[in-house]
Amino acid sequence: MTATRTTTALLKSDAAARLTPTAITRRALRDDDVQVAVSHCGICHTDLHALRGGGGPWPLVPGHEFVGEVTAVGPGVTAFAVGDPVAVGNIVDSCGTCDMCVRSQENCCREFPLLTYGGTDAEGATTLGGWSTSFVVRESFCYRRPASLDAAAVAPLMCAGVTVWVPLRTLGVGPGTRVGVAGVGGLGHLAVKLAVALGAEVTAITGTAAKVVELRSLGATRVLVTSDAPAMEQARGSLDVVVDCVPVAHELAPLLDVLDLDGTLAVVGFLGSFDVDVMDLLMGRKRLLGSGSAGRGSTQELLDFCGEHGITADVEVVPTADVEQALERLGRGDVRYRFVLDLADLRPA
Amino acid sequence: MTATRTTTALLKSDAAARLTPTAITRRALRDDDVQVAVSHCGICHTDLHALRGGGGPWPLVPGHEFVGEVTAVGPGVTAFAVGDPVAVGNIVDSCGTCDMCVRSQENCCREFPLLTYGGTDAEGATTLGGWSTSFVVRESFCYRRPASLDAAAVAPLMCAGVTVWVPLRTLGVGPGTRVGVAGVGGLGHLAVKLAVALGAEVTAITGTAAKVVELRSLGATRVLVTSDAPAMEQARGSLDVVVDCVPVAHELAPLLDVLDLDGTLAVVGFLGSFDVDVMDLLMGRKRLLGSGSAGRGSTQELLDFCGEHGITADVEVVPTADVEQALERLGRGDVRYRFVLDLADLRPA
Repeated sequence: MTATRTTTALLKSDAAARLTPTAITRRALRDDDVQVAVSHCGICHTDLHALRGGGGPWPLVPGHEFVGEVTAVGPGVTAFAVGDPVAVGNIVDSCGTCDMCVRSQENCCREFPLLTYGGTDAEGATTLGGWSTSFVVRESFCYRRPASLDAAAVAPLMCAGVTVWVPLRTLGVGPGTRVGVAGVGGLGHLAVKLAVALGAEVTAITGTAAKVVELRSLGATRVLVTSDAPAMEQARGSLDVVVDCVPVAHELAPLLDVLDLDGTLAVVGFLGSFDVDVMDLLMGRKRLLGSGSAGRGSTQELLDFCGEHGITADVEVVPTADVEQALERLGRGDVRYRFVLDLADLRPA
Repeated sequence: MTATRTTTALLKSDAAARLTPTAITRRALRDDDVQVAVSHCGICHTDLHALRGGGGPWPLVPGHEFVGEVTAVGPGVTAFAVGDPVAVGNIVDSCGTCDMCVRSQENCCREFPLLTYGGTDAEGATTLGGWSTSFVVRESFCYRRPASLDAAAVAPLMCAGVTVWVPLRTLGVGPGTRVGVAGVGGLGHLAVKLAVALGAEVTAITGTAAKVVELRSLGATRVLVTSDAPAMEQARGSLDVVVDCVPVAHELAPLLDVLDLDGTLAVVGFLGSFDVDVMDLLMGRKRLLGSGSAGRGSTQELLDFCGEHGITADVEVVPTADVEQALERLGRGDVRYRFVLDLADLRPA
C-alpha cells in the first residue's frame, strides 16, 4: 500500500462553524514517518475546550488519542511495518536534544512538545488531529498497540490513560499502597483500574452517591462519598496517594485530609490555579504533585502493561455523525467513561 | 538541688502592656517532669507575631527554643539527672496515643500538640514560654544537648533548626543532592549549614545582592540573586530540592522554575496560603511539600547531628533589657541570623 496524502477529517473552520467532514492533505512521508489509518479516536475534555474556547487556531481538527494500523512507512522507518496495530497520543514531536527529551520526558520538552493538533510544526504548519481517517507521524511518536485488546477501548489510554499512569508510577504505587482516586470519569476510571492492576488497595472518592456500586465494579474496595461527612472524617489519614482527576476547580483540603503522613495528592484533572493553605500540607508533611501527559517511555510502558493485564477504557463508541451530541453529553459529564469516535464512516466506501 | 517553683519571666500582661520581668510560678514537679534552669532562649518570628498580634492569650511569656541545665527531676525520671545540658523546643506534650504520636510525629498529634507557650495544658492552664529563668517539662519533651557546642548558639536549633531539618531528611538530602535555600535568615542559614553537612551541593537564593559573599561563607557553592533574570534563567531546572524559608507571602513560580524533573519545593517559612498554578508543577512533575516543626525523634536526631558536625546557629546574644530593640530589628530583618536572649540577667544575684 502506498501513502495517500488526502484524508477526510472532522474540521471546524472557524469559531462560528460546525464540525464538518472535510478533505485535508497530510504531509508527504518523510524518511522516518509512518502513515496510520485511524480507526478510532477518543473525545477528551481538551477537545471540548478547544472547540468551544473560540481561540483557534482555525481550522481545527481535534483528536489526540487514537488507534489504527500502519498503512505506509518512510524509507528510514525501522520499528514499524505496514499492517502493524499502533496508537498515537497528544504529542507528535519534540526537540529531542534538551535535558527533558534526553530523559524521555518529551512531554516536558524545553522547546515545548509539538501537540497532535493546534501545534505549530517545524515547517510552520498547524497540526491537525486524529478525528480523521489518516494521520502521518514520526515513528518515534507512534506506539505498538497490543492486538489482543479492543482497539476502540485502547484509544483513551493514549491521553486519559497516560495522564494517570505517570503519577501512579512516579509515586511507586504497588502492593500495599493505599490509593484514592477522586473524580471517577474518563481519567479516574482508568486510574482505578490501573492502580488495582498494580496491586494497590483502591478507594474511589466521588461526589455522586449513586455511583457507589458501579465504582466497586471497577475494582475499588472502598467508595467515599465526599458529602458523607462522617465517612470522610473516618477516612482521615487513611491513604498514601490520592490521584485527583476532578476536571473543574475545587477545594483541595478534603483530599489532603484523607492523606496519611508523607502522603501525596497528584493533581491531574484540573490544570488551573489552586489556593493552597500550607497548614493543610504541613500537618502530615504532605505533598502536592503536578503531572500531565507522558514521555515516550512511559507511554509504551502503559500500553505494554495494559496488554499484559487486559486493561482498556470503558467506552461508548459513537459514529462521527453523532459527534456534536457526544460533546454536549461530555460537557455535562454524561458518559461512562469515555466517548470514542468510530472513524469508519468518514472513509470512502 | 530541689525544685524552686518561682521563676522570673519576661511577661506581657495584655495587648497594651510591655514585656516586663515578672515573677511566675511553675507547676510542682510531676513524676516524669524535669526542671530546667534556662540560660538562653531564641527570638523567633512566631514570638513577634504573638506579641504584636494582639490576640493573646494574656498573660504571654514567649520563647520556644531554649537551652539550659537540669536543676531537679521528678521521681520517675530516667533519662536525665541534675546538671545535664538540655534543650527544649516548641512542643512540650502530645496525646501520645494517636497514629502520629506512635510514629514520633508529635508535632502532628491528632489532638494537637501542646505548644510551649500559649497552649492549654491538660489541667486547663495556659503554658508560659522560655523567656524565663526556669521551666518545667515532661522528660519526653526535653532533649540531650551536646555540651561541646556553645549553648546560646544551640537554642535556635530547637525551632529554626528542626523546621529545616525535617524536609532535608524527608527528601533524603545527601551527597549529590542539589539543594537550594531561598530566604537565608534564621531558618535559611541553618538550612544551608545542615544541607552542606549532609553532603549536598548548596545554592543560596536571595533577594539581596549584598549578601553574596556572606552566603558563600556559610557553605553555599552558588548564590542566586532573584532579581538577576539571566542567572535565574540559566539556573532553570538545576536543583533537586528547594527549601523555601521566605517568611512572607511570595510567588512560588520562580522557585519551582529552578527545580529539575521530580524536584520538590519545601515550604517552611510562610505558613499562609499560596496561589499555585498546576502548570508550574506539571512541566517537570514537581512537588510542593509542607513541613513545620518536628517530632521527638527528629529533634534529638538534629541535636546529635549538630554535635557530631559542630553546627550551631549564628546568633546575636542580647540581654533581656534589650528585648524590645531586638524585636524591632527582627521585624525589619536586621539580624545575622538569630537573636538569642541571655536570661542570666533575670536571675537573682
